[in-house]
Formats: sequence, structure tokens, C-alpha cells
Amino acid sequence: MSDPTDPVLPDLPPGAWRDAAARVMARCDRLAAVSSRTDGIERVYLSPEHARVNGVVARWMQDAGLRTWQDAAGNRWGHRDGRDPDAPSLVLGSHLDTVRDAGRYDGIVGVLAALEVVRLLGRVVGGFPFGVDVVAFWDEEGARFGKALLGSSAVAGAWDPTWWDLRDEDGTSLRDAFTTFGLDPARVAEAARPRASLAGYLEAHIEQGPQLDRAGAPLGVVTSIAAARRYRLTVVGEARHAGGTPYDARHDALLGASEAVLAVERLCRAEHHVVGTVGRLETFPGAVNVVPGEARLTLDLRGELAESRDRVWGLLAGELDQITGRRGLTWSAEQVHDAPAVVCDPLLRDVLRAGAEGTGQRDVLDLFSPAGHDGMALGAVTDVGMLFLRNADGISHHPDESVTVADVEAGLRALAAAVLHLAHERAG
Amino acid sequence: MSDPTDPVLPDLPPGAWRDAAARVMARCDRLAAVSSRTDGIERVYLSPEHARVNGVVARWMQDAGLRTWQDAAGNRWGHRDGRDPDAPSLVLGSHLDTVRDAGRYDGIVGVLAALEVVRLLGRVVGGFPFGVDVVAFWDEEGARFGKALLGSSAVAGAWDPTWWDLRDEDGTSLRDAFTTFGLDPARVAEAARPRASLAGYLEAHIEQGPQLDRAGAPLGVVTSIAAARRYRLTVVGEARHAGGTPYDARHDALLGASEAVLAVERLCRAEHHVVGTVGRLETFPGAVNVVPGEARLTLDLRGELAESRDRVWGLLAGELDQITGRRGLTWSAEQVHDAPAVVCDPLLRDVLRAGAEGTGQRDVLDLFSPAGHDGMALGAVTDVGMLFLRNADGISHHPDESVTVADVEAGLRALAAAVLHLAHERAG
Repeated sequence: MSDPTDPVLPDLPPGAWRDAAARVMARCDRLAAVSSRTDGIERVYLSPEHARVNGVVARWMQDAGLRTWQDAAGNRWGHRDGRDPDAPSLVLGSHLDTVRDAGRYDGIVGVLAALEVVRLLGRVVGGFPFGVDVVAFWDEEGARFGKALLGSSAVAGAWDPTWWDLRDEDGTSLRDAFTTFGLDPARVAEAARPRASLAGYLEAHIEQGPQLDRAGAPLGVVTSIAAARRYRLTVVGEARHAGGTPYDARHDALLGASEAVLAVERLCRAEHHVVGTVGRLETFPGAVNVVPGEARLTLDLRGELAESRDRVWGLLAGELDQITGRRGLTWSAEQVHDAPAVVCDPLLRDVLRAGAEGTGQRDVLDLFSPAGHDGMALGAVTDVGMLFLRNADGISHHPDESVTVADVEAGLRALAAAVLHLAHERAG
Repeated sequence: MSDPTDPVLPDLPPGAWRDAAARVMARCDRLAAVSSRTDGIERVYLSPEHARVNGVVARWMQDAGLRTWQDAAGNRWGHRDGRDPDAPSLVLGSHLDTVRDAGRYDGIVGVLAALEVVRLLGRVVGGFPFGVDVVAFWDEEGARFGKALLGSSAVAGAWDPTWWDLRDEDGTSLRDAFTTFGLDPARVAEAARPRASLAGYLEAHIEQGPQLDRAGAPLGVVTSIAAARRYRLTVVGEARHAGGTPYDARHDALLGASEAVLAVERLCRAEHHVVGTVGRLETFPGAVNVVPGEARLTLDLRGELAESRDRVWGLLAGELDQITGRRGLTWSAEQVHDAPAVVCDPLLRDVLRAGAEGTGQRDVLDLFSPAGHDGMALGAVTDVGMLFLRNADGISHHPDESVTVADVEAGLRALAAAVLHLAHERAG
């Protein structure tokens, strides 16, 4: 048995890392088949697909020798004790929910990589100064209720009771969805992990942008995760007949909303490291021959700095006042998500960098993550580190997102080495 | 018994017209309760509400002494013979389907007014040189399949077999909806009325604009019905992660669509008597944190002249080429509706004007109708005349659309007198 505090990977059969990477890829394919639609991948929070995938992953965790449970928010956990069964846990993982019409790797590859790392580190974990948890979070994406990071927020003890009344597009409340899934809303606080029970959080994730691919580098270490806010905007005008209503009598909510969509792009481009996206826009009543009386849109606004992001929001609010005033419309906004920028922990960055360099990669990139991750919620209760895996052309949230088996192998080696480095540091 | 060829209304008990108008209003309220939604009015083609309303109206027709039937396209008819049972019929009516979240008068008031007029003209019809039909058309609005005037097109013998594959938003084809409703798609041609069987078409309808209200006039006579085209536009880009994708790697379909929506307004305003409306816009995949990969929108384009309408379309197509070229998008359009302008028949205009003047109204307005009507389809097989009733503020396709009982009474008197004038003219 290797010394768990010596940052050298344990001796493993030849090809063990490659086999593990191949298993991750095959399991990504397997989970991709669990979808609420036949023409693509879609697995949202508290759905039948959530339950099915949690069951499959629980069996895989048990096969790897982990003790498993589903927490009070529907996240799936597996645990292996360290030297002291009461020691805090280093948490490794990511999420299993997807956006609509998703790819097969976003989140998934991080959960499955964590599981392989814990399996391959095998009995050495028994000598660690911390236990190891593998976690599969749910609703990192927020695809169902518009509010992201629900599962990891519950774990961080940051569940907000106002969320119970969030509704999905069928009108089902989060509260009712909990009950239907078999969870008890009154017990969600039991999902919270106290700070003292955690030794840090490490997540591997495909990069959701093109930086690693452009640099020809398999792995990168995240410096910070963007400050993100999400809003639901409503523009209200008057539904009127499309033929009989002359332009001077129209209050067309879609025309106002279209100006707002273009203003988001213009204002974000004028700021440094701020991106804004209107991902959904709907019109009501939505008939071909009725001037839209209402338009509802989502806005996702994120920046490396909260200040620049919020400056864009302030300018946009001013433009919305002007647009709607000019067109005889009104507008309102509901903020449904607010996450400060999370700066990754220097020690966790260091061990991930050392792990990545141990794979032979020369220039391990430091990357800012404009995409949100569960670490944004976990950052409130423990240190966070993130490893990015190269993703060809940076395509994400799309069926074409990709990662190679070679890069997954590099990621597994780097993540395992990082865990050993950390055990070494913490033992000291 | 009055002389049916003398354009003088038959002697009726005092208050008969006012009572008839009140009955029309009460029946509009009654039909408003037959809706697929509890929070408003919505009755679309081939729905359970279509069947229920047809049954109710059939009984009312029978109570008025008409022989009734439902035709092969689901339109409801009632007939009373003229002097010669084989004589062609003057058709009076409008439609019973609605837009989404509709008012209670659009179409409905025209069907019920026709029924009251035929009832009050009573036995005099027996001396007419034509029979009289009351018709309740279905799917004038096109709210379900995007294609308007389906019922009246069947009556005009202009059913296009390509329509069978039109689908509603649940994916149900028009063909399947026919079968589910209990109609036989193979027999739709039987709904066609040969030109020789028709003596003209007269329709009363609330104005779908503010001209009568602005002029303080209860009634107006329609000169022509707009040339209307409808399109389904699709803008395709690339769905990508809202955080990780920098602006230079985005191909956001909604940004392109928003520019197109604003271009429609700008181009139409620059033309004389052309209005364009994007009534529905949807984004796909439609998630808060995904750059839209596709936007689908409807376009309703109508003008007093087909030439000016089509000039706008040509300019818009050019702008769409530029917008999508600049943003790395593609676009396509499917034309789902194409109606030429229909000029109302001079004789029918004259008898309607005489009828309206007989109510004591001084300045009977000549009105162009930018809104479409069943007369656009009927115009292919018979002469068309239309009477507009004042509608406060011109609000239409909205729960607030309105008409007063006094204006309905004026409309009933004018329409009845017009029928008598026409009988007089045709007898001569």
C-alpha cells in the first residue's frame, strides 16, 4: 500500500487509467439514454429521469465500495471513510441534471470521474486525514424552475423558503414537485452540511468555452467562478387585432421586448468580461393575428466582477424605462438567481495545478469561469477548486459538446494526484 | 303580409328590434361560457367547444324555423326557402371560432344577428326570389393551425390538400383533427357551394379598429378586405452555453429574430396602409442559460393593396439576408396563408348603405377592412357585402372588445332592410 500522504499515484495495472476513462465515456453514453425526450437529452430536477439516474449511479457507487444515500434535496451521495471515521470529508463531484436538448458531458463527466478516482485510489483513502464523498448534485442548471444551484444550495444550508413557490412551465410549484418526487419539503434543511464536516470541494468539468481548445491544452485550473444574476422580465402592452389596429393605437409588447434583447447585447459588449443572454422569450396570447399584449423573457447576466455586471443591469433598467415609456408599455423584473463571484481556494488551485502538471502537461492554464457551477453555492461552506477539461470548439449546452477519452484520462490522473497532494498537505 | 319586394321592414310588435338585439347580446354571453379555458374565451376549430357551440346554435336555428345541417368542414348552416325552393340562397352569417383569450363578439355577433334578421323577416322570406341561409363558419381566425379561413375556403371549393399536414402546437395534424371531430377528410369537397347556388353573402361584424368610434357613427359599409399573407419564419443559429460562449463565438437566433421584428415595424410604417405583426415568437431550446439556437416567429402582413404588402415582404427578405449573414445565422420562411384583396360588390354595398341610412344614420362611413373575413374566401364564388358595427376604441381580439345593444339594434335593422332592398332589386 502506498503512503497516502506521499503525492504519488498508487501502483495500478497498466492501462487502468485509460480503462477508467473509457468507463466514464461509456457511462456518459448510458446516462444520455435516460431522457424525458426521444430526440435529445433532457433531465430536469425532480423528474422521473432524476429518480432513474440516481438509482443507476447509486449502484455504481456501491460497486465502487461506497456507502450511499440520497439527501433531503434529492442529491445522490457516496462516502468512503478516511483514517478517522469522524473526520470531515473532501467532496468530489458535479451534477447530473441537464439543460434542455443537452450534451452528454456537462456535469455528468465530473460525477463519473470523481467516482473513478475514488475507486482507483482504493484502499489508500483509508489512510487519509479526511473521508471522501462523491456527490451528484441536482439542478445545477435551473432548467426547470429558472433558479439554478438548488441542490448545492441545500447542501450549503442556503435554501430560501421563497423558492417553494417557484413554478415550472406547467405551473407545478417546487413544493409540489418535491412531494411528487417523494421528498419532504419540511425536511430540506437536513441536506445541509455543516462547515466542520467538509474538507473542501473539488470538481472536474468540461470547459464551457473555447480557451483550452484554442491553446491546445487538455486541462486548466479555475481561478474564479462568475458573479451571475438571473431575472424574469415581463413587458406588458395591449393585445389587439393585428389587422384593425393602426400603428398609432398599438402597444406591442414584443416590439418593446425586441429592443430590450438588442440592448442587452449592446450594453454587455461595451463592458469588460460581462455576458448577457436572453435564452427564452415568449409572447402572449401568442396568436398569429393578435398584437402581443405581453412578452416574457429570461435574462442571464454574468461577469468576472459583480460591479461591472450590475452596472450593465442598471443601464438596461434605464433603457427599459425609455423603451416602454415611448411605446406605452410597462415592464417589471423578478430576480430569480443571485450568486456572487466565488474565488477558488489557493491551496486547491495549487494541488490541481500540481496534479495537471503531473500528467506531463506543460502550460496549465488559469481560467476564469463565466459559467456557473455548484462550487458557487459550496463556496459558502467550504473551499472550492475546479479542474476544466478541454471541450472541442467550446460547444456546451448543446448535443455537440464533446470531450476525448485521452483528455478524460488526463483529468482522472490530475484529479487523483490532486487528492493525494491535498492528503499530503493536510497530514502535515 | 308585406310585399317582400318592397324595401320596407315588415310590421313588427313595438320593441321587436330592441328585443332581438338584447337576445343577440345575451346569446353572445351564453356562447362566451363555452371555452377551452376558465380564465377567458378560446374556441378553436375541431375542438370539443366547436361541437358544443354548433349544437347550441343548431337548436337556435331550428327554433327560428330553419332547416339545419353541419357541412363536411364543420360549418353550421340553417336554411329557409324562398319563392322557388330551387332558387339560389342569399347567405347571411359570420364565424363562431375565436382567437386565444378572445372577446365575445368577433364573428359571433354576425352569426346571431343573421339569425335574428331571418327570424324577424319571418314569413316574408317565402316570397323572396332567393332562399336565405344563415351560416356559422369555423376557423376564420386560424388560431389552431395558423391557416385562416379554413371553413369558408371549403365552402368556396378552395380547400388545398396540402393543408391536411398542417399541425397545431400539440403536433396534431389537421387530418387527424378532422377524424377526431367526426368528419371525413375524404369528403371535405362536399362542403363546396357551387356559384349557381349562391345569391350573395352579407356579413355583419364589429369593426376591428377605431374608425367608427372616432367618427361617432354606429354603422359603416366595407369597401374592400385587405390582401393578407401569413408566414412562419425560422431563424437558426447555434445553441451554446450562456456563460462560456464569448460574443465572437455566438450565433444567437433570438438576436437575429429581434432585429427582424423591429424591421417589420419600420418597413410597414414606411408604406401606405400596410400593417405587419409578429404575434408569436418562441426560442429553442428556450433555457435561461442557453444561447438560443433557433427562433420561430409568425408574420401577418396585410395591406389595402397587394403590391405594397408584397413590396414590404421583399424588403424584409433582403434585411433578413443581411441580419443573418452578419450574425452567422440562416433563415427560412413558409407562407401559410395568402389572400388577395376582395373588393365588395357595388350592389351589396348600396343595399347595405340604404339599410344603414334607413336607421336614421346620416354619415354612413365607407371603410377599408385591414382585418380578414370569411368574405375573402367567399368572394371567389359569390358577391360579398359587409356591414361594420361600432366597437368602442376599436379594441378587438381581446376580452375588452365591445358593442352596444343600441348599435346591434341598428345593425339588425340595417341588415334586414338590406335583404329587403336586395329582394326588391333581384325581383325586378
